[in-house]
Amino acid sequence: MKREHKEMMKARARNIALRVAYDGTAYAGFQRQTPPVIAVQNVLEEKLARIFGDSIELAASGRTDAGVHAYGQVVNFFTDGTIPVSRIARAANSLLPPDIVVKEAWEADRAFSARHSARSKTYLYRIAQGETPDPMLARYAWYIRRPLDCAAMRAALARILGTHDFSAFRAAGGAPMSPVRTMYEATLEEERPGLLACRIHGSGFLYHMVRNLMGTIANVGLGVLQPADIDRILASHDRAQASATAPAHGLYLLHVAYGEEATATS
Amino acid sequence: MKREHKEMMKARARNIALRVAYDGTAYAGFQRQTPPVIAVQNVLEEKLARIFGDSIELAASGRTDAGVHAYGQVVNFFTDGTIPVSRIARAANSLLPPDIVVKEAWEADRAFSARHSARSKTYLYRIAQGETPDPMLARYAWYIRRPLDCAAMRAALARILGTHDFSAFRAAGGAPMSPVRTMYEATLEEERPGLLACRIHGSGFLYHMVRNLMGTIANVGLGVLQPADIDRILASHDRAQASATAPAHGLYLLHVAYGEEATATS
Repeated sequence: MKREHKEMMKARARNIALRVAYDGTAYAGFQRQTPPVIAVQNVLEEKLARIFGDSIELAASGRTDAGVHAYGQVVNFFTDGTIPVSRIARAANSLLPPDIVVKEAWEADRAFSARHSARSKTYLYRIAQGETPDPMLARYAWYIRRPLDCAAMRAALARILGTHDFSAFRAAGGAPMSPVRTMYEATLEEERPGLLACRIHGSGFLYHMVRNLMGTIANVGLGVLQPADIDRILASHDRAQASATAPAHGLYLLHVAYGEEATATS
Repeated sequence: MKREHKEMMKARARNIALRVAYDGTAYAGFQRQTPPVIAVQNVLEEKLARIFGDSIELAASGRTDAGVHAYGQVVNFFTDGTIPVSRIARAANSLLPPDIVVKEAWEADRAFSARHSARSKTYLYRIAQGETPDPMLARYAWYIRRPLDCAAMRAALARILGTHDFSAFRAAGGAPMSPVRTMYEATLEEERPGLLACRIHGSGFLYHMVRNLMGTIANVGLGVLQPADIDRILASHDRAQASATAPAHGLYLLHVAYGEEATATS
């Protein structure tokens, strides 16, 4: 029955992909919830249904937790709606609340799946520093008052590069998938005075992996752990060895990379 | 009676001044309101009363409207509370919600009034640009999709410098004060890609003056008005000649400057 429904959806004429940005503060995460609980997906599907004159069922590159933000979430859906692709973003944004924005829309190949075609993802994690917090960053960065040692944090980030079993940074409750992932890049920069930005680009991420990594990296910045402790924690495969999960509101899904099937061949 | 109350307050031992930052989104402006309407002042007075063990009545450098933010609002109050000045900010911030932050506290001279001693104020106004809006800026900047001509806006800002009658930029409903003010500085910079920041430093500002100026300056940026139109609008003393009021959520009270009485002489 579920399969039949999927086949029916795929019989529709177009496969539309969207890049979506959102402020996750007001939502119970990305994935559709049963009202009155509202997720980003509920709002997107409702507004897109009005534009396409079709029931819309999104697939996304992945879930984001409550409070987590996105600059580059990617979704796709099948539709018989006829609105030209060049008008989708503005039509959607005129209906969407200001905390959800369609940045880009395109016709994807029929084989494209925002979830299954993803080749890598990049997350951003922001940490605010300073004697007192900045109220304008309260929803957008993890505030840590004590000054962080950025050089030590960079040394710690370098140790997650390459292919590892990330079990020690995986929360219970995620899908039962292989814990082996490859990290291509892990940088820390001062985005502006008092605001640190960490970027992690990897082949994929386990449940709460970025937030568990960031909790641990912050402890390196505070001198509670040494950069070399990252090797020991990775090798332990034991979640109890890593630090507490960093707050959701510092995390952003920045970019999802795909192969050629992401754009229409026709 | 009101005067007696004021004298009673002034008989208290200390005059404490605070620099306060807040995200104005959730509040009905700065000035105290009757609950269930909540202003920033309601929240500050309630939390400070708990710290000082005293009823607290703040005076502020000025009101800010609903949705307007502050990095540098200044308030003062008289108290017999004994908490050392060095502990006030942290004690207050442990009780305050994350959208209101005490940045700094000091003992002021008894003659200091956050309102009456102010010599000048600086406002910041943020404008977001781009083909689609950034949801993380929805509460913090005025989004204008069409690209603005920054050079023309700077030429327009230069024309408000010096001493003028700003009646054309004053909204009805403010206090009946002289409309003559002196602007010392009015700059426009790209704070980061897609985010413009205008700073205006002046001897004082009329009701809605910065927002009325920004609505007009934005129209210069869009080519609807020319920089020289600013002279004509100023000379008209007619609010109907200036453009519509820019939205509250782009505006920040950045800094209030005082003379020596701002710090204690004792």
